[in-house]
Amino acid sequence: MTWPPVYDRAYRPPPEEPYWFRREETMSAEERKELILAKLKAQVAYAWERSPFYRRKWQAAGFHPEQLKTLEDIRRIPILTKDDLRKDQSEHPPFGSNLCVEPHEIIRIHGTSGTTGRPTVFCISRDDWQRIAEAHARIMWGMGLRPTDTVFIGSLFSLYMGGWAVLVGVERLGATAFPFGAGVPGQTERAIEWLRLVRPTAFYGTPSYALYLAERAKAMGVDPARDFAFRILFFSGEPGAGIPSVKAKIEGTYGGICIDSGSMAEMTPWMTNAECQYRTGMHLWNDIVYTEIVDPKTYEPVPPGSEGVPVYTHLERTSQPMIRMFSGDLTSWTDEPCPCGRTYPRLPRGIYGRVDDMFIVRGVNVYPSAIEEVLQSLPEFGGEFRVIVSRKEYMDHLVVRVEYGPELAAAAETAPHRLEEFRRTVSDRLKTRIGVSAVVELVPPGTLERTEFKARRVVDERDLYNKLLRKGGTATV
Amino acid sequence: MTWPPVYDRAYRPPPEEPYWFRREETMSAEERKELILAKLKAQVAYAWERSPFYRRKWQAAGFHPEQLKTLEDIRRIPILTKDDLRKDQSEHPPFGSNLCVEPHEIIRIHGTSGTTGRPTVFCISRDDWQRIAEAHARIMWGMGLRPTDTVFIGSLFSLYMGGWAVLVGVERLGATAFPFGAGVPGQTERAIEWLRLVRPTAFYGTPSYALYLAERAKAMGVDPARDFAFRILFFSGEPGAGIPSVKAKIEGTYGGICIDSGSMAEMTPWMTNAECQYRTGMHLWNDIVYTEIVDPKTYEPVPPGSEGVPVYTHLERTSQPMIRMFSGDLTSWTDEPCPCGRTYPRLPRGIYGRVDDMFIVRGVNVYPSAIEEVLQSLPEFGGEFRVIVSRKEYMDHLVVRVEYGPELAAAAETAPHRLEEFRRTVSDRLKTRIGVSAVVELVPPGTLERTEFKARRVVDERDLYNKLLRKGGTATV
Repeated sequence: MTWPPVYDRAYRPPPEEPYWFRREETMSAEERKELILAKLKAQVAYAWERSPFYRRKWQAAGFHPEQLKTLEDIRRIPILTKDDLRKDQSEHPPFGSNLCVEPHEIIRIHGTSGTTGRPTVFCISRDDWQRIAEAHARIMWGMGLRPTDTVFIGSLFSLYMGGWAVLVGVERLGATAFPFGAGVPGQTERAIEWLRLVRPTAFYGTPSYALYLAERAKAMGVDPARDFAFRILFFSGEPGAGIPSVKAKIEGTYGGICIDSGSMAEMTPWMTNAECQYRTGMHLWNDIVYTEIVDPKTYEPVPPGSEGVPVYTHLERTSQPMIRMFSGDLTSWTDEPCPCGRTYPRLPRGIYGRVDDMFIVRGVNVYPSAIEEVLQSLPEFGGEFRVIVSRKEYMDHLVVRVEYGPELAAAAETAPHRLEEFRRTVSDRLKTRIGVSAVVELVPPGTLERTEFKARRVVDERDLYNKLLRKGGTATV
Repeated sequence: MTWPPVYDRAYRPPPEEPYWFRREETMSAEERKELILAKLKAQVAYAWERSPFYRRKWQAAGFHPEQLKTLEDIRRIPILTKDDLRKDQSEHPPFGSNLCVEPHEIIRIHGTSGTTGRPTVFCISRDDWQRIAEAHARIMWGMGLRPTDTVFIGSLFSLYMGGWAVLVGVERLGATAFPFGAGVPGQTERAIEWLRLVRPTAFYGTPSYALYLAERAKAMGVDPARDFAFRILFFSGEPGAGIPSVKAKIEGTYGGICIDSGSMAEMTPWMTNAECQYRTGMHLWNDIVYTEIVDPKTYEPVPPGSEGVPVYTHLERTSQPMIRMFSGDLTSWTDEPCPCGRTYPRLPRGIYGRVDDMFIVRGVNVYPSAIEEVLQSLPEFGGEFRVIVSRKEYMDHLVVRVEYGPELAAAAETAPHRLEEFRRTVSDRLKTRIGVSAVVELVPPGTLERTEFKARRVVDERDLYNKLLRKGGTATV
C-alpha cells in the first residue's frame, strides 16, 4: 500500500455506475477493517514522525505507534479535543506544533472563528487538497451527482470550509460549479433571480438557509419547485437535513431529494459523514476518515442502536492530521444494509444533539433539534422559533416562541380561536416529544430574525448554566 | 503556433527571475505584433466557427476572418458592447449564442448582477480556467509575488470574478491563499483579528476596502503597518489604486507597496491591465488580452498621451470569447519604457473615468437609468430625482432623493403613513434592482429642479475621486 494515497486525477466512473470506487465502497466489514488498519498505521507513524504535538501527547499517555496491531488498538491512542488544539496553537502560534508539512507545501489557510475563545487555524497542503477533491467527488457521486449537474453553492466562502470542499469536489467530479455564496445583505434576493435564470440542478448550503431562501422566494411570487430546477439538495453546517420532518419539508418545497452530510470543523474539508441518494442516514465513509462511535465518558465503542459520540481519525491527511478527535456530537449507529449497496455503517437519525449544547430543564435533557422537529411537522408553523430557558423561583422555566405562518394569520382574522388551537397543539406535542412542559408564545409571521448560517435559537438565561453552555454552541459543520 | 495555447502546469521560474515568461514580456513591439496577430487570427477563426453570435454580427458588418492580414485589420471587426451581450443572452437564455464550448466543458458560472436590466451570465470552461490561472500567476509574479507569500483575499466570493481569479493565480504561482472574503456584517473585525494572527504578506481587495479595514483596525488599537505584515497590496474592482494620492495613503498606512490592476467584468477573470512592482501605471499584457485605446466616437486608435477608451480582445479564451469589447472607461496610454524591462504599453494615470454616467458603489456598477426605471414604474413618483454618492468612513454611501407626486401628497395629508410606505417600496425595489442598499429621502412635488436636456442627476461627493474623476464614474473591475 502506498501512503499517502495518490489518486488518478483523470479517473471518473461512467455515469450509470453507482459507485466511484466500487471495491472500497462495497467491501466486507472484515476487509475494510484491514484497509483501515493499514492506513491508520501509516497515518499514525507519519504523525509520530512529523508532529511534535502528537509525539508529546502520546508519550505522556504511554502510547507508541507500534502498539497498533489490530484496529481495536486505536483505543490506546488518547482522545483529542478542540481545547487541545487551541491550547497548542496558542503556545505555538499561529499554526501549532501539528503542522507536519513544510510551509511552502501549504496552499490554503482556513479556520474557525472561535466563538469559544481563540480562533483555530487550519492549513491544507497541496497534496491534501487533491485528496479532499477526490473524497468529495466520491461522496457526491454517491449522492447521485453527475458531470451533467450544475451545483449552486449557497454558503459563505470564507474561513468555513464546507463550501470550499463542495467546490473542489464539483471540479473533480466534472460538474459545473455556480459558487454564489451567502451571508451578504441582499444576496438571497439576487440568488432567487439567478436560480430562475440559470436553473442549477443541485443545491448546497445549510438547511435553515434553504428554508429561508424558499420563504423569500415565495414572498417574491417564485415557486421553488416550479421555478427552480433542483433535483438534489445536499447540506452540511447544521444537522437539520437529517431530521425527518425537515427533510420532508425541504423535499416538499423544492421537489428534489434532501441529503444530509457533515462532520465537524476540525475534520473538514473531509465531510465523511454523508447520506447516499437513498437517504437512510449518513454513511460513515470509514476508509477516508475512520469514525468510532463511543461512550462520552468511557470512550469505549457503543453497540449498534446505542447513543454515542463520533470520534474521528483522518486516514489520509498529511497537513494537520486529526487523530481520535472527539466531536461532542450525539448520534447512534447501525450496520444494517442500505439499498445503495454500500457497506459503510450508518447514522440513521443523523447527528441530533450535542453532549454540551443539549440543555437540561427540570432534570430532563432537551435538544433544540427535537423542538424543531415538532414545529416543522406542523403546517401552521411559520418557519422560525426561539427557545428561552430561564429560572423562576428556583424552577426552570422554558419558553418556546413560535412564529406562525401567513395562512394561519389570514385565517385568524376571522377566526381568532385558531391561534389558541395552534398554541395548544404545539404545547401538547412538545410535552410529548421533549418530556417537559413549555410555555408556548405565538408571534406573527416575519417577527423573528432569520438565521442565514448557523442557527442559534436557544437563549439560556440561567446563570448556573451560562458558563457551561458558552463552551457548547453548535459544533457540527 | 498551437492555439489555444497549452501551458506547462509544472513550470515556475526561479524566485530571483523577474519575469514569468521573459521572452513574451520583453519582446520588441514589432515582434509582439506578430505574436498578437497570430493569436488573434486563431481566436477570430475559432469564434467564426463556433459562435453563432459573432457569425451573425460579423456577417451583418461585412467582416470575414480572412480579412485579417495585419494587426491593424482588427479595426474591420465591429465593436462589441455590454448591451450586445445582454440582448443576445435574453434572446438565447441563459448563456447566449456565444458559448463556443459544449455544456459539459463548463466548470464555472459567474456573472454581473445587471443593474441595467437583465444579469449577464459568464461561463468558463475547464481549459480556460487553467489559462486564467497561468495569466494571473504571470501577472502576479510581475507584481513581485512569490511562492513564499501568503495572500489574504479580502473580496466577496460570489458572482464577481476578481477574487476567484486571484485565488486560482495564487494556486498556480505556488503561494498560500487565505481566502477570507468580505461583505458580511462583522467580517472586517474578524479579518483584523486573523490578520494579526496569521500575518499574510500580501493583500487583495478594493482600495476602499483596504482603507476601511485600516480605519477599523486603528479604532481597535491595531496599527496596520506594525501589526499586519503586508509587503504587497494589490487591487482591482475600483480605480483608486492608480490615483497617486490613494496609492500614497495605502502605502503610508500599511507599509507595503500598492499595485493597481483590473479591466472590466466581461473580460475577467483575465485582469490583464496590471502594474508591475514599479507602479508606473498598468501594463497592458497584450499577448494575453489585446487592448486597443480608441476614440469613443470613431473607434480609431488614439496616439500615446491622448485620451481614449480601452477596447479589449481575448486572445486565448475558448468559452465566450470577447472580441473588441468596448469598455466605456477613460484612460490615456504611453509606450515609454518601464524600469521593470517589460515592453508592454502602459496606462500611466490608470483608468480615471467613464464615457457614460455609470458609477460604482461598493463594487457594484450602478446606472442612473436603472434607478429611473424603478421610479418611473411607481405611480406615486413625482417625476424627478437625484442620486448622491458619498463616502462615510471609507465605505460608499448612496442616497436617492425622490420627489413624490401630487396625489400622494394629497393622500398623505390625512394618512401620513402613506409616505413611509412609499419610501419603503422605493427602497426595496431599488435594492433588488441595483443590488446595493440606498438611503431613500422623499421630497414634496416640485422641489427638485427639472433637467431639460441630458439628465445629470448624479452627485458624486466622494472626495477621494472627485478631483480626478470628472465624470463621476469608476469602472474597472
